[in-house]
Amino acid sequence: MNNVTLSPKPRGKEAIGSIVDRMQSLVADDLAQVEHLLATRAASPISVIPDLSGYIVSAGGKRLRPLITLISAYAVGKPNTATHALAAAVEFIHTATLLHDDVVDESDLRRGKPAAKAIWGNKASILVGDFLFARAFNLLVETNSLEILNRLATASTIIAEGEVRQLAAMQARDLPTEDYLAIIEAKTGALFEAAAETGAMSAGSDEHAHALATYGKNLGLAFQIVDDALDYGGTTSVIGKSVGDDFRECKITLPVIIAKRRGSDEDRLFWDRAMNPETQQDADLAHAVHLIRATGAAEATIQEAEAYAALAKGALRSLESSPYRSALEDLADFCVSRAY
Amino acid sequence: MNNVTLSPKPRGKEAIGSIVDRMQSLVADDLAQVEHLLATRAASPISVIPDLSGYIVSAGGKRLRPLITLISAYAVGKPNTATHALAAAVEFIHTATLLHDDVVDESDLRRGKPAAKAIWGNKASILVGDFLFARAFNLLVETNSLEILNRLATASTIIAEGEVRQLAAMQARDLPTEDYLAIIEAKTGALFEAAAETGAMSAGSDEHAHALATYGKNLGLAFQIVDDALDYGGTTSVIGKSVGDDFRECKITLPVIIAKRRGSDEDRLFWDRAMNPETQQDADLAHAVHLIRATGAAEATIQEAEAYAALAKGALRSLESSPYRSALEDLADFCVSRAY
Repeated sequence: MNNVTLSPKPRGKEAIGSIVDRMQSLVADDLAQVEHLLATRAASPISVIPDLSGYIVSAGGKRLRPLITLISAYAVGKPNTATHALAAAVEFIHTATLLHDDVVDESDLRRGKPAAKAIWGNKASILVGDFLFARAFNLLVETNSLEILNRLATASTIIAEGEVRQLAAMQARDLPTEDYLAIIEAKTGALFEAAAETGAMSAGSDEHAHALATYGKNLGLAFQIVDDALDYGGTTSVIGKSVGDDFRECKITLPVIIAKRRGSDEDRLFWDRAMNPETQQDADLAHAVHLIRATGAAEATIQEAEAYAALAKGALRSLESSPYRSALEDLADFCVSRAY
Repeated sequence: MNNVTLSPKPRGKEAIGSIVDRMQSLVADDLAQVEHLLATRAASPISVIPDLSGYIVSAGGKRLRPLITLISAYAVGKPNTATHALAAAVEFIHTATLLHDDVVDESDLRRGKPAAKAIWGNKASILVGDFLFARAFNLLVETNSLEILNRLATASTIIAEGEVRQLAAMQARDLPTEDYLAIIEAKTGALFEAAAETGAMSAGSDEHAHALATYGKNLGLAFQIVDDALDYGGTTSVIGKSVGDDFRECKITLPVIIAKRRGSDEDRLFWDRAMNPETQQDADLAHAVHLIRATGAAEATIQEAEAYAALAKGALRSLESSPYRSALEDLADFCVSRAY
């Protein structure tokens, strides 16, 4: 397993905040255009729609995916109005999937705030998700590129496939690591991949689109694996997203797969009982976190994320050096550093 | 209110069945292409997706919207592979909205069969709806027309807006007729309108696209008003869709609006109590059906639908006479005749 040295090793929320801040400054003017599109294209005379979408679109989102699109465009060329429409569309697609995920996941919190469905209900969340998804395709028309549009439509089908596969996997007692990776590659990797790839395409660089697609996919994998580690508190402290959501949903993620594989027979019996909604008990989360630490599953999970971050950075090697390429490299490091 | 004479007046399910049969024969080869797309483009390695989408796509659907697209194309030119992709996309968008509607409406039956969500659950229904919606946009890319794609994306936003507006209206005690019409124009009219308009566009006739848009919109209004009348048994007997779904959902539709307006003070108190989920009683449906008949609200509702059917037919006047124009005219008549 590849070890990425982070020097100096950034810590906690400030670290990820500062790299995102730097990325935002790097493309501030473009990002302002994207923010304008996000605000104006969610408009509707039906007030629930801008209320609900405004709540989630502005709910502390880091605009990670639009940033990837914009910086990918700069890394190989120059963003234009097509890039801005594309970046806004990517964020709308992401927002739509969040709204539908919250309904599917039965979680009441999103980014530490009440989920939209906890305020407006499941029905409005489903429908406003549909609305934003459709608006994303209106925006994509403005890229004037059927190829870009097709890429995002395909990414959207892959996301839905990944979510359905994850749903089906919840009924399984064991989930092979390859299946876990296939699920997160679909539900998270696909949109990161498309965001980076089409960002390059929108700047007129088909030549580097493939490299950026590889970057995006591996970045997405690293990001999601770290997210799944954070659901058990990461390696040291509780950061960001609330701990235990995946556990309560009996969602089998990499920390659990590794802890179960490394555990004793008794541990495996615990996991089988605890990861079953009918037999899970309230006290099980604390023991699950303990086992994930004690077996070294937390570190092993982060090492896996580091390997994908290294692959992401490696894919950028064919690009010329620039502040934009560096920003994309930093982003890969910092995605992983969230876990420490 | 305009009175359309139906002579001989067709009756019941056979009638709508036979016109749809005739329409299907008229474009049999094209429809076979569309059916092939519907079957192959819902494919996915995740078996729940083809299982669920196959269940609903083949669940006794009349393919009304693809037929409108194909016959609109023939009425002004000639369908081609773009028209086929478009017609399949329209059906996928429709199917996606059905899947999400079933979750939103809490109904357990769809076209007289168990709703998909009653078999596969709400979560899978939401996600497979998302999948089909995304696949629709993949298909629309094959039309090679950003304009057609934009039209369908916009129609999809309007449908979602209509659904959200309907949701908000359920909390209102009274719904002005104009608001009811705006809701059904959005949730049903928009897709009929886009299906007819883009059908013409795909056949290269921008000249007649506007006329067909007007046709589609008014046909959709007639169709939905009749659907809403049928939810109270139409004017004579119980046909098609199960009676009382809208009532149990406290969805305020035209028969209720008219019956309430024409009713006594006592009737209005009944409607206020019965159309409230907290005070509705099981026996209320029979009384609601009685009031809708006794006040003549059923006939008045159908007359409204007849007026829209007449507007739909009127919009076709600028088109040359052809078996295809006649089929579109017949469809308008027969949409209304479902209610008798």
